[in-house]
Amino acid sequence: MSPLKRLEILVLHGPNLNMLGVRQPEIYGRITLKEINEEILRWAEAHGTGVEIVQSNSEGDLVEAIQRAAQTYDAIVINPAAYTHTSVAILDALLAVGIPSVEVHMTNIYGREDFRRTSITAAATRGQICGFGAHSYILGLEAVWHILTVPQKTDY
Amino acid sequence: MSPLKRLEILVLHGPNLNMLGVRQPEIYGRITLKEINEEILRWAEAHGTGVEIVQSNSEGDLVEAIQRAAQTYDAIVINPAAYTHTSVAILDALLAVGIPSVEVHMTNIYGREDFRRTSITAAATRGQICGFGAHSYILGLEAVWHILTVPQKTDY
Amino acid sequence: MSPLKRLEILVLHGPNLNMLGVRQPEIYGRITLKEINEEILRWAEAHGTGVEIVQSNSEGDLVEAIQRAAQTYDAIVINPAAYTHTSVAILDALLAVGIPSVEVHMTNIYGREDFRRTSITAAATRGQICGFGAHSYILGLEAVWHILTVPQKTDY
Amino acid sequence: MSPLKRLEILVLHGPNLNMLGVRQPEIYGRITLKEINEEILRWAEAHGTGVEIVQSNSEGDLVEAIQRAAQTYDAIVINPAAYTHTSVAILDALLAVGIPSVEVHMTNIYGREDFRRTSITAAATRGQICGFGAHSYILGLEAVWHILTVPQKTDY
Amino acid sequence: MSPLKRLEILVLHGPNLNMLGVRQPEIYGRITLKEINEEILRWAEAHGTGVEIVQSNSEGDLVEAIQRAAQTYDAIVINPAAYTHTSVAILDALLAVGIPSVEVHMTNIYGREDFRRTSITAAATRGQICGFGAHSYILGLEAVWHILTVPQKTDY
Amino acid sequence: MSPLKRLEILVLHGPNLNMLGVRQPEIYGRITLKEINEEILRWAEAHGTGVEIVQSNSEGDLVEAIQRAAQTYDAIVINPAAYTHTSVAILDALLAVGIPSVEVHMTNIYGREDFRRTSITAAATRGQICGFGAHSYILGLEAVWHILTVPQKTDY
Amino acid sequence: MSPLKRLEILVLHGPNLNMLGVRQPEIYGRITLKEINEEILRWAEAHGTGVEIVQSNSEGDLVEAIQRAAQTYDAIVINPAAYTHTSVAILDALLAVGIPSVEVHMTNIYGREDFRRTSITAAATRGQICGFGAHSYILGLEAVWHILTVPQKTDY
Amino acid sequence: MSPLKRLEILVLHGPNLNMLGVRQPEIYGRITLKEINEEILRWAEAHGTGVEIVQSNSEGDLVEAIQRAAQTYDAIVINPAAYTHTSVAILDALLAVGIPSVEVHMTNIYGREDFRRTSITAAATRGQICGFGAHSYILGLEAVWHILTVPQKTDY
Amino acid sequence: MSPLKRLEILVLHGPNLNMLGVRQPEIYGRITLKEINEEILRWAEAHGTGVEIVQSNSEGDLVEAIQRAAQTYDAIVINPAAYTHTSVAILDALLAVGIPSVEVHMTNIYGREDFRRTSITAAATRGQICGFGAHSYILGLEAVWHILTVPQKTDY
Amino acid sequence: MSPLKRLEILVLHGPNLNMLGVRQPEIYGRITLKEINEEILRWAEAHGTGVEIVQSNSEGDLVEAIQRAAQTYDAIVINPAAYTHTSVAILDALLAVGIPSVEVHMTNIYGREDFRRTSITAAATRGQICGFGAHSYILGLEAVWHILTVPQKTDY
Amino acid sequence: MSPLKRLEILVLHGPNLNMLGVRQPEIYGRITLKEINEEILRWAEAHGTGVEIVQSNSEGDLVEAIQRAAQTYDAIVINPAAYTHTSVAILDALLAVGIPSVEVHMTNIYGREDFRRTSITAAATRGQICGFGAHSYILGLEAVWHILTVPQKTDY
Amino acid sequence: MSPLKRLEILVLHGPNLNMLGVRQPEIYGRITLKEINEEILRWAEAHGTGVEIVQSNSEGDLVEAIQRAAQTYDAIVINPAAYTHTSVAILDALLAVGIPSVEVHMTNIYGREDFRRTSITAAATRGQICGFGAHSYILGLEAVWHILTVPQKTDY
Repeated sequence: MSPLKRLEILVLHGPNLNMLGVRQPEIYGRITLKEINEEILRWAEAHGTGVEIVQSNSEGDLVEAIQRAAQTYDAIVINPAAYTHTSVAILDALLAVGIPSVEVHMTNIYGREDFRRTSITAAATRGQICGFGAHSYILGLEAVWHILTVPQKTDY
Repeated sequence: MSPLKRLEILVLHGPNLNMLGVRQPEIYGRITLKEINEEILRWAEAHGTGVEIVQSNSEGDLVEAIQRAAQTYDAIVINPAAYTHTSVAILDALLAVGIPSVEVHMTNIYGREDFRRTSITAAATRGQICGFGAHSYILGLEAVWHILTVPQKTDY
Repeated sequence: MSPLKRLEILVLHGPNLNMLGVRQPEIYGRITLKEINEEILRWAEAHGTGVEIVQSNSEGDLVEAIQRAAQTYDAIVINPAAYTHTSVAILDALLAVGIPSVEVHMTNIYGREDFRRTSITAAATRGQICGFGAHSYILGLEAVWHILTVPQKTDY
Repeated sequence: MSPLKRLEILVLHGPNLNMLGVRQPEIYGRITLKEINEEILRWAEAHGTGVEIVQSNSEGDLVEAIQRAAQTYDAIVINPAAYTHTSVAILDALLAVGIPSVEVHMTNIYGREDFRRTSITAAATRGQICGFGAHSYILGLEAVWHILTVPQKTDY
Repeated sequence: MSPLKRLEILVLHGPNLNMLGVRQPEIYGRITLKEINEEILRWAEAHGTGVEIVQSNSEGDLVEAIQRAAQTYDAIVINPAAYTHTSVAILDALLAVGIPSVEVHMTNIYGREDFRRTSITAAATRGQICGFGAHSYILGLEAVWHILTVPQKTDY
Repeated sequence: MSPLKRLEILVLHGPNLNMLGVRQPEIYGRITLKEINEEILRWAEAHGTGVEIVQSNSEGDLVEAIQRAAQTYDAIVINPAAYTHTSVAILDALLAVGIPSVEVHMTNIYGREDFRRTSITAAATRGQICGFGAHSYILGLEAVWHILTVPQKTDY
Repeated sequence: MSPLKRLEILVLHGPNLNMLGVRQPEIYGRITLKEINEEILRWAEAHGTGVEIVQSNSEGDLVEAIQRAAQTYDAIVINPAAYTHTSVAILDALLAVGIPSVEVHMTNIYGREDFRRTSITAAATRGQICGFGAHSYILGLEAVWHILTVPQKTDY
Repeated sequence: MSPLKRLEILVLHGPNLNMLGVRQPEIYGRITLKEINEEILRWAEAHGTGVEIVQSNSEGDLVEAIQRAAQTYDAIVINPAAYTHTSVAILDALLAVGIPSVEVHMTNIYGREDFRRTSITAAATRGQICGFGAHSYILGLEAVWHILTVPQKTDY
Repeated sequence: MSPLKRLEILVLHGPNLNMLGVRQPEIYGRITLKEINEEILRWAEAHGTGVEIVQSNSEGDLVEAIQRAAQTYDAIVINPAAYTHTSVAILDALLAVGIPSVEVHMTNIYGREDFRRTSITAAATRGQICGFGAHSYILGLEAVWHILTVPQKTDY
Repeated sequence: MSPLKRLEILVLHGPNLNMLGVRQPEIYGRITLKEINEEILRWAEAHGTGVEIVQSNSEGDLVEAIQRAAQTYDAIVINPAAYTHTSVAILDALLAVGIPSVEVHMTNIYGREDFRRTSITAAATRGQICGFGAHSYILGLEAVWHILTVPQKTDY
Repeated sequence: MSPLKRLEILVLHGPNLNMLGVRQPEIYGRITLKEINEEILRWAEAHGTGVEIVQSNSEGDLVEAIQRAAQTYDAIVINPAAYTHTSVAILDALLAVGIPSVEVHMTNIYGREDFRRTSITAAATRGQICGFGAHSYILGLEAVWHILTVPQKTDY
Repeated sequence: MSPLKRLEILVLHGPNLNMLGVRQPEIYGRITLKEINEEILRWAEAHGTGVEIVQSNSEGDLVEAIQRAAQTYDAIVINPAAYTHTSVAILDALLAVGIPSVEVHMTNIYGREDFRRTSITAAATRGQICGFGAHSYILGLEAVWHILTVPQKTDY
């Protein structure tokens, strides 16, 4: 089922994701944020969807990007990175906006240090996808696409 | 990129998932396991993939299904349900077989009771997808499809 | 108040209860499971109630017995024994079936080792009775009898 | 088996139970303490048993009621209410008197806030019964009746 | 007792408070931040007090606003919102400035999730007021007014 | 907005507050309970409000004072003092009465020993005010006055 | 060194100590409270000291006895029994009175259940003596005698 | 000292041990379960002892194998594998049978993940041997041989 | 009652007590170990008792002193100082010797840092005395004197 | 050994360090940040090293300053101040850049509040220096100088 | 397989083991250290192995014995006794020497007090054997014999 | 500023540091204690300072070395090694002597096992330096040099 109006999705990259390809390639791989964003845009084009991509290292900026999303976007795909484990402010911002959101992580958070095995922010999202590298973003986009285009009542 | 030989995927449903549609519909929805399995089979047909689906309420049976998978399947999509939070045996079985696996949950485990907010078994998988109802299985299949058909080295 | 149709109650004995009389008599006493079952059947006869009694050492079998109960029984009396303290799967099965259940223990769980002083499964039942030896089962039967035969709205 | 001398049982209601019917009816129901006491007295009459009923909001008064029971009563049925979770003094008083006691709760303590899911006082009793509303008291009376009238050695 | 020079008070709103009225009205009510600010200004006018109101979603901006307050303001009324529970930096900033501060919350933090039941930042303030909606701010202003205008030595 | 009938407020002082002025003046100041009560009565007179003031060192007496308040008073201002950190019975009593209550403390509980940094009882009140010495009581009275005289629906 | 005026010491027995000799003799021995009090009085006579002995099962009564002691007594010897482990109110009362106090226990609290191995109240006393049965009281009296009659400055 | 009747020993392999040689050889080595069993049988032959070897991935099956052992075997050597860390049911089964048992592990559990550093089941055995690969089983057999053939009273 | 043979008591000072008078006089006072030992010897002379006094900073030396005591001494008075809170070895040594021991501390361990508020070693002694400076040793001597000279059966 | 090219070091001051000299002089002393910076620059001049000094109260700004350092600087000396104890984002940024870093603190973090006794960020640095006031920065510069100019392989 | 040169093994007994036979015979049995050492020497003679046996109550002496072992011995069998649960120094010493070591305990540490159920030192050894009284030493010798004489690569 | 009298510094090496170069070179490097001591002596010569270097594996010996330092040395540089994490005795000894001390570690304690991430002993020192291999000692010497030769009042 395809929606009448063009869907608009906000993709948020949290702190240090601008370092991808440089930062610890044995954990995060060699792909750069630019390459990930190109993959995201290809997906958007293929699905006739609008996508805006924002990266920020600042908790406050991410909070504000989430707040502004309510007026302009239909859904949020967010990788809060380090703030996943500490930010009540991002949790509250996601709770405050009415639109659906999905949390994604490139690494499997269950296979890392103890303090990365939990998420404060995911409680405010529809769900979480982790462990598939750059493809986690594509799966996150598929997930919000499904939420926005398939009637949810009888779904699960 | 499409693989030469037909891929075979094992889908494992853990305890009580045979009760779907009956069990607590305010949490798990009204869809039945039969309907989910039909969705999984449609996805398999569309992707030219073989799929076997097993449901069991027994931890030992799930361990054995995982062990046997090494000979027959290319990947596992598993919803360990209640055993997610307690089973070291399933964790060990997933570690023992060489093939990639993905953990899926219909509900967002971060939005439920404290003891459901963590996963013992996910540490042995490539990643986890939770919160999207029956569609979590489809996203899990997409994830293993991507792992099996796209060269992983330069991916993330 | 007596119900029109004969009530059917499922009594479930968890792991190692088949060892009663042999196993640590200084804790569990010298009564055997056979003698307990005879007491249960006498109670059933006296109350014109049908009773089926199942003992299993397997978590998965107990889950399935609970699931099947929804079609056939009006209530469950369960002594999950060792699984009381570890089984999320039994908790989920009890939540999944719509019929009332009562948890019973022969020993006072508050007077034993720390890990036995709490119950995971009791949260899915109407209540718990512990400490009265074989008579805990009779009190559990009295409790479900009361739930099934007395209008509950104005009760407590 | 019926005892030769009339049995005397002390029933103790802890703090705030005098507010029943007024206090949070969505949790505790609409029954009043007066109605519960009438049920208890009916049970006593039917069993030819003496019953004294005391309610107190004071931990010290409950301790003293328990102490005095040793001379006058054969058993105690106690709902320590809020003191269940905090009172070492009531625990010690129950340990100090030689007569058997049973702890009862109207609500299922395993289905409430975390701090209500454990009992300090139950370790000094024969057992605990929780979750059956006013009927928890009747089951508690049945339990002490059984302890007092059936030889306990071969029981469990 | 009224002070000779006009008192100047800084009111700080933390993250997501700009979403009031939109954000989860079942928790935070339907009043908007603009309406709260008008109430604050009415209070200031009635008391002949200067008030500056700042809202920020950024922890660093709040730290800097607190630091600047030492030169310009006589006191701070701060609702650190989500940062209440995590920010050692705001705690340190409040300790660093010599002027009195008061922490306010619209909701009763003791009636919410566990991680909201404590405050890191309040240790650096004179006191905390929570649970009275927009009126918490007015009570906070009353509290600093009292601190600034009544000799504190013999007060409490 | 002023109410038609005279409002009646119960002010409860918990254990050891009768020692004020004597007890640890470096923490609690030199003001006596008599002086605080005079301040409270002045406030009541100024607002045309009835006030009854009760001090007790007994948990049970405080529970009973709270229970009786439902018939006679419109609101409660309570300083549970030491019982703040331990009394489930006072929590339950405040939950049992339908009238609004406010918890006050003279000291900032966040600036003291760890065991004083949390409140069990505040979860049953509308809110908490701490840290302003005797003036905490006045702010507590202002808070209940506001709750009783201003329509609460659109407030926060 | 002997003091000029007769010293007056208050000895406080906490909850359930009136049950001594009856209560769990395998832990507390067969001596009765009456016999302990006679030993205390013999000590007092031998030292020319006044002693008042109070036993109470009520936390509030113990708080009030401690408060009154400031006017009449030179020191307190207290066995808070069960309240040792839970009472912030007794801790606060002991802090509020200016006279020295000593905590005594008949049993060695380090050799019992975990929750008895710590003391909340002892932090407000000069020291604690435990483990010597009735003789713990005599050693406690010796300790306060030493504090009251030997100049403390150069002592330890 | 050699026993008159032939000793019979039950050797139990827990979950995933059938995967040895395949499963994570960097942790468990390249030896297969078949090779281990041959070593065990060689030991049995050399000692004139009967040995039955059972492997199961099911907790319930292991419980039942232990229960049946009481009639047929003189001792149990058990490697509970993953169930070591979670199974109260196996603990209870080992407690229920009267014959001595020894727990063995191929890896040193103190050198692995935190959740593997403790054992629930070992409390019901005579002792534990871990860290010596397949040779742990031989040492376990030596240990039960010693228990069964050397008078234990004056041993340690 | 006086014993026939002269009693011999071993007094053990743990680590850093040789620094008394130098070390943190605001906590430990200005008295030196030499002066304390003189007080101990005066007590011994007055009671016709033999006393040997040993100070050691070595955990091993203290263990050996305790072990040797069994042959030569009737009782031990020990201030384990810093080892109080960590030494299982001293605990085991005190358990190994059959003679009674008493633990003493100059400071009130309940009024200091958290890690000093508990004792590992006291579980092996008859009791503990803390908080009375050098006089704690004298009270400890009185306590062992009482244990050795008064029949203990009917004491407490 | 002196390097051929001039070394460039980035010195980062975290939140509230711009308040030095004003903020809590009893803890942080009276030296100002300007004076510390002058000391740092004198050290740099004496060692022929370039130094850039940045202070920020914003976690995001510090993350970005660390990220930019990879291109321009040879090493980082960072005092994360309050973010030491909470920031996973700064930890990740330090891990992401390949250049060595050293963490410094003016105060001894082991002598302060419990939550300041640990460091999240130090795990990503070569080492930590704390407790020497402004001189901690000089020692930090010495440490990175040593890392950059002395061959590290055979060093420790 | 038998080694060409004679193997030399160091056996270390930790604190209080010299008290065996005296110390708590209900836990440790009546065998003396001398008898255990004779058993060890008989085993050594039978295997043509050199054995040196050292007992020390001093943590430092044990550390030094371990350090010296590297030059002289092929393996260590150590019973760290009380230091098992606290000594990072012995852990470090065992890590520092290159030769294999095995930890043994006479009692089953899983059946004793909580603080004895874990081992700090075992992480530095090849494995641990506990629960078999004096025979634990013999099994430990067998274990190191196997490590030293059987090629380990293909073993487990 | 250079001092008039020659400064004397005590350098203390804790347990196992005599094993440097042998012990785990992948963690501690290949440098030997002899080489480190030569570096320390070169530094001392260059600064005209006296240095004594002591290594001990015994906690008691280290305590005594610290105690003796008060008479002879101006400062202590100590690497307590394994005792860092457990020794209250060394903490007390450092508190007892009046001279300044600095704690050093060769490794970054924040990058190792959890139990090594905290320090008990550092609370008694001026500060801690960790992570720079042998150079940590040189930085520690620089730190005490600075403390001893630069007026500390206006420093930090």
